[in-house]
Parts: sequence; structure tokens; C-alpha cells
Amino acid sequence: MRYYSYDEFLEDVRLIDKLLYPDIDTIVAVARGGLTFAHFLAERKGIREVLCINSIGYDNDRKLECVNVYNLPNLDCAQSVLIVDDIVDSGDTLLEVLKKLKSLYPDKKFYTAALFYKRSAKIAPNFYAKKTDEWIEFFWSKDLA
Amino acid sequence: MRYYSYDEFLEDVRLIDKLLYPDIDTIVAVARGGLTFAHFLAERKGIREVLCINSIGYDNDRKLECVNVYNLPNLDCAQSVLIVDDIVDSGDTLLEVLKKLKSLYPDKKFYTAALFYKRSAKIAPNFYAKKTDEWIEFFWSKDLA
Repeated sequence: MRYYSYDEFLEDVRLIDKLLYPDIDTIVAVARGGLTFAHFLAERKGIREVLCINSIGYDNDRKLECVNVYNLPNLDCAQSVLIVDDIVDSGDTLLEVLKKLKSLYPDKKFYTAALFYKRSAKIAPNFYAKKTDEWIEFFWSKDLA
Repeated sequence: MRYYSYDEFLEDVRLIDKLLYPDIDTIVAVARGGLTFAHFLAERKGIREVLCINSIGYDNDRKLECVNVYNLPNLDCAQSVLIVDDIVDSGDTLLEVLKKLKSLYPDKKFYTAALFYKRSAKIAPNFYAKKTDEWIEFFWSKDLA
């Protein structure tokens, strides 16, 4: 178990901001986990188009058999899209989000970013701040407790 | 100009959480401004359904003549929806979001919440932390500068 603080998050947003390709014009946040990260990154980069997508793959920390992705955003006006989540754990969510969005928008460019990336994940995000094997306690749930 | 810190925000999320009606099952965040608030409030209340809606009404601090609301979320499974934004300024965004969602879902209940509420706004949110007449510098833009 590792606590991830707001101050560490600020450093990581600055770090990932420097790594990102300059052509990204749209951010898609995977709700809920990616919401705060997407908000800060969009502020930092001056990107006004922040859309959301919903995903359910866990049920009270118990892994479900499949990932359900819904509320797909309209990306007609996007060219280069950054999909943002807090952590790439198994990678199932990110793979399913990419699959659905790429099939709907085969001509758009898609990149992925996460704060944490587990070495055991099936897919590595294009941009991430840290590799981990631990369970992360994010400030957005911990600091309110 | 008034700086709004992360610590003050945590207090306000706790405050608003206590005010909310217990029947709320879905949160709709107005992007970008409402994203972080929606994320924290959903964590606090244990609400997994966090959807987003997009709104453009300002262009570089210059007020546009009308508010455009788009990427309307699917609320078929919702019963009682909390619309969340950072600040109710003129009230134009909130009025337009409410109008569009109520016309699509006339049988659902809609409530509104914001961290700040300007006395001059055309509509008061059902739940808010503070009234203000100042320009607010939120931590999600200021702390990265």
C-alpha cells in the first residue's frame, strides 16, 4: 500500500506535460479514476476539449471478468487524442477503451497516459510518471477520509 | 482575485457532502471546471456513476453571447442526478445544462452543486460552499504555474 499525495501528483503532472507530443488537441478522461489527472493536465496544456468515457471493470476491488466501456464521447472534431487514466493495472480498461474508440474513429491518432503503470499490465501507456507493483492510495480518496 | 487552495477545497467537499440528499445516484460533471470536484465528491459519496458534459461559454475570459452545451451523457440508468461545476458565475452554463438534460430526461430528478456561487448569477445551485463576488484562482490551474 502506497499513499500518493497531492504534492507528488503536481510534480508528476509537470513531468508528463513535458513528455507529451505537442499535437494533442483533445483529452479523454476515463472516469472516475482519470478525472482529476485529466483536469490538471488540460489546465497545464491549455486544452479545452476534455471529454469523458466510463468504464466498469472492478466491483469492490474484486476483478470482474470483463471490462465494460460506455458513454463514448463524440470525437468528430478531434485529431489527436490523449486517453488519460490514473493507473494502468491489468491494462484491460485501456485496451477496451482504445479498441472501442479506434473502431469508431479509425482516422484519429490515439495516445495514452497514466500516473502509474504496473509492470504486469498487458499494455504500457505511451506516457506515465511511475512504474509500481503496489496498491496505490490516491489523495482523492485518502485525503477525504 | 482570490486563491482557492487544495486544503480549503477538501473542507468544502466535506461540507457539501453533508448537505447532499441521500437519493443522488449519478453525478454529471461540467467539464473542465467541475471535473476535480466531481471526482472527489463521487469518492466521498461512493458514487460510481460520474458522467461528463461539455460547455463552452467563455473565450479567454471574454464572455460569449451564448453557452454551447454538448456531449450530453446517457442518463437512462439514473434516477437522481447531481450536476457539478466549480463556480456558478453568470448562471448561463448551469441553466443551459439543466434545460438540455431536463428536456431529454423529463422524469429524472436534477440537483446542482458548485464550490462557489456569485450573488449576481441568474440561478442559485441547490448546494454550494461559498458565495463570492471575486475572481477565483483555483488550485488546479494555480498550483501548476
